[in-house]
Amino acid sequence: MNNELSCPLPMNEYDKVLLAHGSGGTLSNKLYNDVIFSELMNEYLYDIHDSAIVTSGGQKIAFTTDSYVVKPIFFPGGDIGKLAVFGTVNDLAVVGAKPSFISCGFIIEEGLLMSELKKIVHSIFEASLKANVKVVTGDTKVVEKSKGDKIYINTSGIGIFDREILISPKRCKDGDVIIINGYIGNHGIAVMLEREGITFESKIESDCAPLNDLISNILNIGIDVHMMRDATRGGVASVLNEIAKSGNVGILLYEENLPIQEEVKSACEIMGFDPLYVANEGKVIIVADASDADKIVSIMKQHELGKNAAVIGEVISNNAGVVTMKTVIGTTRIVDMISGEQLPRIC
Amino acid sequence: MNNELSCPLPMNEYDKVLLAHGSGGTLSNKLYNDVIFSELMNEYLYDIHDSAIVTSGGQKIAFTTDSYVVKPIFFPGGDIGKLAVFGTVNDLAVVGAKPSFISCGFIIEEGLLMSELKKIVHSIFEASLKANVKVVTGDTKVVEKSKGDKIYINTSGIGIFDREILISPKRCKDGDVIIINGYIGNHGIAVMLEREGITFESKIESDCAPLNDLISNILNIGIDVHMMRDATRGGVASVLNEIAKSGNVGILLYEENLPIQEEVKSACEIMGFDPLYVANEGKVIIVADASDADKIVSIMKQHELGKNAAVIGEVISNNAGVVTMKTVIGTTRIVDMISGEQLPRIC
Repeated sequence: MNNELSCPLPMNEYDKVLLAHGSGGTLSNKLYNDVIFSELMNEYLYDIHDSAIVTSGGQKIAFTTDSYVVKPIFFPGGDIGKLAVFGTVNDLAVVGAKPSFISCGFIIEEGLLMSELKKIVHSIFEASLKANVKVVTGDTKVVEKSKGDKIYINTSGIGIFDREILISPKRCKDGDVIIINGYIGNHGIAVMLEREGITFESKIESDCAPLNDLISNILNIGIDVHMMRDATRGGVASVLNEIAKSGNVGILLYEENLPIQEEVKSACEIMGFDPLYVANEGKVIIVADASDADKIVSIMKQHELGKNAAVIGEVISNNAGVVTMKTVIGTTRIVDMISGEQLPRIC
Repeated sequence: MNNELSCPLPMNEYDKVLLAHGSGGTLSNKLYNDVIFSELMNEYLYDIHDSAIVTSGGQKIAFTTDSYVVKPIFFPGGDIGKLAVFGTVNDLAVVGAKPSFISCGFIIEEGLLMSELKKIVHSIFEASLKANVKVVTGDTKVVEKSKGDKIYINTSGIGIFDREILISPKRCKDGDVIIINGYIGNHGIAVMLEREGITFESKIESDCAPLNDLISNILNIGIDVHMMRDATRGGVASVLNEIAKSGNVGILLYEENLPIQEEVKSACEIMGFDPLYVANEGKVIIVADASDADKIVSIMKQHELGKNAAVIGEVISNNAGVVTMKTVIGTTRIVDMISGEQLPRIC
């Protein structure tokens, strides 16, 4: 036997879980595909949405889950409680469901200040009022000091479908527009600055918000949304890459149209981040017929969460599975899936 | 002012969360009532069940959540994956629903062996087959070394009601029987022995199992179950105390009827545990008319999970809110709610 000629392990095989496996990028997808989906795959998991769509007694419902491990637990514009409610509300809203019921599972590190816990629970309550959902069930576990980090929260949610709707990357087609409801990157940068103790002249706040009202305004006037996703962990780039791959279409972004707050742009430049990969918590990407673009943008602009809405790109027939961007200097570059870890524990 | 005369803080006021707040006993209840329910209370949380019962488009569904932080993650008779599936299945089954859909949220500590993760995911898959539920949605987060403990899993679940049923502690009445499907304390002792590295001559295994099949066998022949709960964290004693308090009835246990495996009894004696407070993960307590006792026990005994089923007590009209036990030596003692921490991270 000639061992020297044997194949080495591929670079992306790991025998341990890394932080980057939680990034929402390529390694996360690899973990899902190779370790999780390979075991658990069924007809529900096959269509990778933010929520599963199941049928209960003839009634279609959306079902989703997310754990929140954001650090620090309080940050400008929000906290882990608000994030946990809105995040799950948004996962339900983007499949076209009406978010209705939420569960809350707390994993608390021994020693968490009771005053902080109270503040978080109060924030969950206020967020549930704002998003018009009810927390109907919960669970609390406590782990020893240094076996957690203050508090982790899982929220799962149930959404009801009050309309016929088909949201799918497979519905994206040549010429469709890609629209976002406002500034990108605020959440990730706000959390990162708070974590590192950096203060900017102008405060950068998380965009953490419930998107269900904005989305239902669009659906209520009968607009045929082809595809919809909130751009959280991994940012706009990761979501668009997933859409391009699942829909087997090309996506072309226009850099000059990307709505980015000046302060976020500066912070990204200083810290070396690309805002396209930075997490948002109140941004939805909508893909629809080009003929609906004006209507969608106009409805968004009438909503407090859509003041800076913009058409940021289009679906194209070439470069299937790939996201490209026409830059401000006129060149075109590939916007790839994030591969490693950019900002750990951002949500 | 005479400070010496001022009231000290009550002993049970804490400014930090303690491990005992996760015990499933008095302190847990205090945390729920004072910190969580006081903020979030609504008509769904008011009826404290293992699952919330909500209505979606005229269809009643059960919805529940639980986080699993058991240590170690592998133990005789099970592992954290199996536990997470069966635990949530059981919470749905005991409100009379048919467990249907499960979500899985992983919080993984950086450095977890990929082989261990694969083993757990495989165990989740096998458990879902056994319990006849589907994992339809999931989420994975990774936290830094020493900010978690290998892996925590949240499972939430949706159950469908295929029959009219009213399970409520308020339906418990004088003369009702209290039945359990078998040995108590196995799960808690199995986990504790594994954690401490103690080996017994005979292996004690967790009773971790899905109760939905056993329960539906009972409901299918039309037995009117008044109240049902699985006796997990805090053990049989805690569940019965909750039933006694919520139902405003007395509960009398017969010590001589309690099914306890000899090895568990010995382990409890050596380690100073009372098996009534030790967690189970495959035990249901059923309260029903005395006239249904024989039928229920007989159906249980025909099932692999009910071989050691027994009537362990009765509902009585005096001592409302209190659980008492007639001991083997003929005395009667109060079986109180557990107040502090007996076995942390048992589920």
